[in-house]
Amino acid sequence: MKRAFIVGVMGGGSAPEKDLRAARRLGRLIASQGWVLLNGGRNAGIMEASARGACEAGGVTLGILPDASDHQVSEYIQIPVLTGMGSARNSINVLSSHVVVACPGGTGTLSEIALALKAGRPVILMGFDAERIFDAHAKAGQLHYAETPEDAIERIKALYP
Amino acid sequence: MKRAFIVGVMGGGSAPEKDLRAARRLGRLIASQGWVLLNGGRNAGIMEASARGACEAGGVTLGILPDASDHQVSEYIQIPVLTGMGSARNSINVLSSHVVVACPGGTGTLSEIALALKAGRPVILMGFDAERIFDAHAKAGQLHYAETPEDAIERIKALYP
Amino acid sequence: MKRAFIVGVMGGGSAPEKDLRAARRLGRLIASQGWVLLNGGRNAGIMEASARGACEAGGVTLGILPDASDHQVSEYIQIPVLTGMGSARNSINVLSSHVVVACPGGTGTLSEIALALKAGRPVILMGFDAERIFDAHAKAGQLHYAETPEDAIERIKALYP
Amino acid sequence: MKRAFIVGVMGGGSAPEKDLRAARRLGRLIASQGWVLLNGGRNAGIMEASARGACEAGGVTLGILPDASDHQVSEYIQIPVLTGMGSARNSINVLSSHVVVACPGGTGTLSEIALALKAGRPVILMGFDAERIFDAHAKAGQLHYAETPEDAIERIKALYP
Repeated sequence: MKRAFIVGVMGGGSAPEKDLRAARRLGRLIASQGWVLLNGGRNAGIMEASARGACEAGGVTLGILPDASDHQVSEYIQIPVLTGMGSARNSINVLSSHVVVACPGGTGTLSEIALALKAGRPVILMGFDAERIFDAHAKAGQLHYAETPEDAIERIKALYP
Repeated sequence: MKRAFIVGVMGGGSAPEKDLRAARRLGRLIASQGWVLLNGGRNAGIMEASARGACEAGGVTLGILPDASDHQVSEYIQIPVLTGMGSARNSINVLSSHVVVACPGGTGTLSEIALALKAGRPVILMGFDAERIFDAHAKAGQLHYAETPEDAIERIKALYP
Repeated sequence: MKRAFIVGVMGGGSAPEKDLRAARRLGRLIASQGWVLLNGGRNAGIMEASARGACEAGGVTLGILPDASDHQVSEYIQIPVLTGMGSARNSINVLSSHVVVACPGGTGTLSEIALALKAGRPVILMGFDAERIFDAHAKAGQLHYAETPEDAIERIKALYP
Repeated sequence: MKRAFIVGVMGGGSAPEKDLRAARRLGRLIASQGWVLLNGGRNAGIMEASARGACEAGGVTLGILPDASDHQVSEYIQIPVLTGMGSARNSINVLSSHVVVACPGGTGTLSEIALALKAGRPVILMGFDAERIFDAHAKAGQLHYAETPEDAIERIKALYP
């Protein structure tokens, strides 16, 4: 039985069009690698875009919802996990990901970057402007930067050869 | 994109051989229907057995772990969700399941039956001896009994035609 | 600095008048012992009644709310902990209690009894009709029965001399 | 019955001596106002120091522990809430606080600042160097800076006159 390699894609519930396009392409590339895409599962922003991309490439999408019901689940999430625990689920997002890619977002995304670093997960900032605040807090080799989705995929492959 | 139909299989971390066999067959039948099997994800008891059955039939297995690491994940779990929140994750198990099948188990399983009923999920008792305590607490049509895995599958089909 | 001795009082969001009276008296007795009363924190049923009793006797009341806001906090809860995680907080209720007293309630209370036994906490059933289902699952000396609030207090004192 | 006004003090499990001294003074001042001090509850760093200060001034200390046991609870925590859910409890810390004061810390503290802003809680940065990253993400009037514990108290009073 094959254990999934899980890539968490974090990012805002709303985002500029160009970031949504990048997230969608990232989703497609993740699926093309045979990896599972994990995100926050809602039908909005980076979540919807990245899940959509993964579905378009025939991949598997796993959404960890803050909600107890499926009313706001993206149609591109195949496997919704309903936590019913609001932002406390951000911790589950990062623990369950082998690597976290942070797209542009707000305080939720910031909390996920911080929690991922705390949990020892590698984090790839892809367009997320963190003003280098995390540099001081990351362990050596834990924090990475990617300009494009293709870049992010190369980083992940380098981390998990 | 097709949303998964998720069947939660609950039960003890250890169980008599005949219950493990039944759980494994239940897993196989669930997978044969094209449904996703959700359980607690550990490499023991009903969890391991039901996930093994589902894998044998080519299905997808989703494990919601109490742990923050993957040290105790069953080899038959393809998608482990690491919650790091101990028994608080029992609530996630039932919220994320369309229907819950309770195999023989202990206090953890009891808590999941109770939480499932509270969350409005249908529950099928398959060999779990609950001494009818839940009868008074279930809403009409919420609590079901199955003698065999085949029985349980028929119940689920009747619930979700 | 003195660490609080915490007694968890579980029970339904609605309950018959006589059970509410017993819960209120239990709250009073708990406070009279100098113990902290912990419950689910809402302004209803056994929660409201037991917190009220504790306040009347000058005690400290700690409510572990399922909600992310304080809209449904009982006026008798002095210290509300807002978890925002629904029934997943039931696990916190029992972990944080030195001993759990179960008053009449429904599936939520059932889940808390089960989780308390799993976590190794002593449980006192005070009017909660569990049809002896928990007998088989409790460790020796873990499960107790009390007829009255006074009885429950004596049991707790015997457990923690 | 009086509902507690709860001030959350966040900060690192280890910190320079001068920051520990400031946290301890902050704890003392919080208690002197009659407010309840909430923190992460462990026997280390800013948590231990702030709880100690609050106890010295006769205040009430509430610790929201990541652990399921009380082995690492600070001796200055009077009311430990054992969540057993690791960093997922950071969300509870901020939801339960009327206002959050961030002392110097690492990724855990960063996640709490982010979650507090997301939850709409006012945040006072007291020595936490966030490189102004949160400026863009905070709502108007949500983010504040304090040089000293006395400063922080004045900010809180201005927020809740």
